[in-house]
Amino acid sequence: MPRYKLLLEYDGTPFVGWQLQDGQMSVQGRLAQAVEAFSGEAAIPRGAGRTDAGVHATGQVAHLDLEKDWEPARVRDALNAQVRPDPIAVLSCEKVAESFDARFSAKARHYLYRIVDRRPPLALEKDRAWGVFKPLDAEAMHAAAQALLGHHDFTTFRSSECQAPRPRRRLDRLDVSRHGEIIRVEASARSFLHNQVRSMVGSLKCVGEGRWTAGDLKAALEARDRAACGPVAPACGLYLVKVDY
Amino acid sequence: MPRYKLLLEYDGTPFVGWQLQDGQMSVQGRLAQAVEAFSGEAAIPRGAGRTDAGVHATGQVAHLDLEKDWEPARVRDALNAQVRPDPIAVLSCEKVAESFDARFSAKARHYLYRIVDRRPPLALEKDRAWGVFKPLDAEAMHAAAQALLGHHDFTTFRSSECQAPRPRRRLDRLDVSRHGEIIRVEASARSFLHNQVRSMVGSLKCVGEGRWTAGDLKAALEARDRAACGPVAPACGLYLVKVDY
Repeated sequence: MPRYKLLLEYDGTPFVGWQLQDGQMSVQGRLAQAVEAFSGEAAIPRGAGRTDAGVHATGQVAHLDLEKDWEPARVRDALNAQVRPDPIAVLSCEKVAESFDARFSAKARHYLYRIVDRRPPLALEKDRAWGVFKPLDAEAMHAAAQALLGHHDFTTFRSSECQAPRPRRRLDRLDVSRHGEIIRVEASARSFLHNQVRSMVGSLKCVGEGRWTAGDLKAALEARDRAACGPVAPACGLYLVKVDY
Repeated sequence: MPRYKLLLEYDGTPFVGWQLQDGQMSVQGRLAQAVEAFSGEAAIPRGAGRTDAGVHATGQVAHLDLEKDWEPARVRDALNAQVRPDPIAVLSCEKVAESFDARFSAKARHYLYRIVDRRPPLALEKDRAWGVFKPLDAEAMHAAAQALLGHHDFTTFRSSECQAPRPRRRLDRLDVSRHGEIIRVEASARSFLHNQVRSMVGSLKCVGEGRWTAGDLKAALEARDRAACGPVAPACGLYLVKVDY
């Protein structure tokens, strides 16, 4: 039974998130429909990251098992034809060993969070970035963020609905940089807790506004208390950009 | 009677175009509604360029006359509040002399056309670029484009519905450049004919595919015949980026 590795891009706006939900349009569910439509097989792709409603991907990875042995390029083109006009694209498809698991084989996940920092609301970037109208100090945000690197109990930056058994994670990268009116937050880790990136970005915004010091961010981490988190950043600014294996 | 100069960004996807049309959602009409909602005045903004349905702007300019003398920042914020949630943003507003006319005072208009050149369909760039699945030779496109610079009769690259009295224009810039899978076509002129940029881009795509030579593009221009134009590029890739005064 061949296993296929899919590299996926999607606009998360119209979806309830990656994960299959009865009667609702999820990315996973829409792909499963497309698989059945072209192959006749009821096979569900398994993703590396369960992105939330409104969260985008430029490099989500999923694996898919099919009974029939198809050319990978055929699988890619057939899925792309079947998901139309919904905003999902299969960027590439390759055959992988049965031992490959999109979720459990992942060695690192890379997320990008995009802020547009300007007074006017967003028109072209609507649903593609977080519009923050107060001027943010990106350098202060970057400096403060470095205190979150390494092994920590991230309870503060974890959704109360997070289902992970333990709140400890190792954060490898949390870079904040300004490019004109755009602020990019780049986060890398082997794995993240539910809402971790959005929770960290929301707290970093408090630092950028000058409402929090770097010490306040560190104290929030050390509180290991969800109530110490800043307001969680909206889903529309978040992109799953790459998964390493 | 104060005159205001508005700098505008919009996502053209949900609009029938810039120009006011009865019973349909145009950018100009939506702004006029917003003006009336905040000021009580029935004043219609006049734009520098009449962008078509689906065409975007990051730097459209319009002028607006109001009886009452408002702070320009107040006009900007009030319009932004009133147009929500439609994807129009007033980036800036300033008072200008009564002699300023967004359309007739313009010295140059700058357009960008974005192509995403890849086999998979577009997800995040859907409605934001033209997805072309054949590999295009951007260098050949750029080289061929240079034959269109200068004063010419652009009848070939002009919509049959164009209302301009004369088909002669001076094209100052037509640069094609590749940035990964993205191809940018940058066009500048004092003014353009209706559909001129999309017509030129559609013909340049024929060159990029190798179906047309540079000589074929030049022959198309010299034919001064609409039938000699390549298939017109779709609206979704076009952006009005800047107007010079």
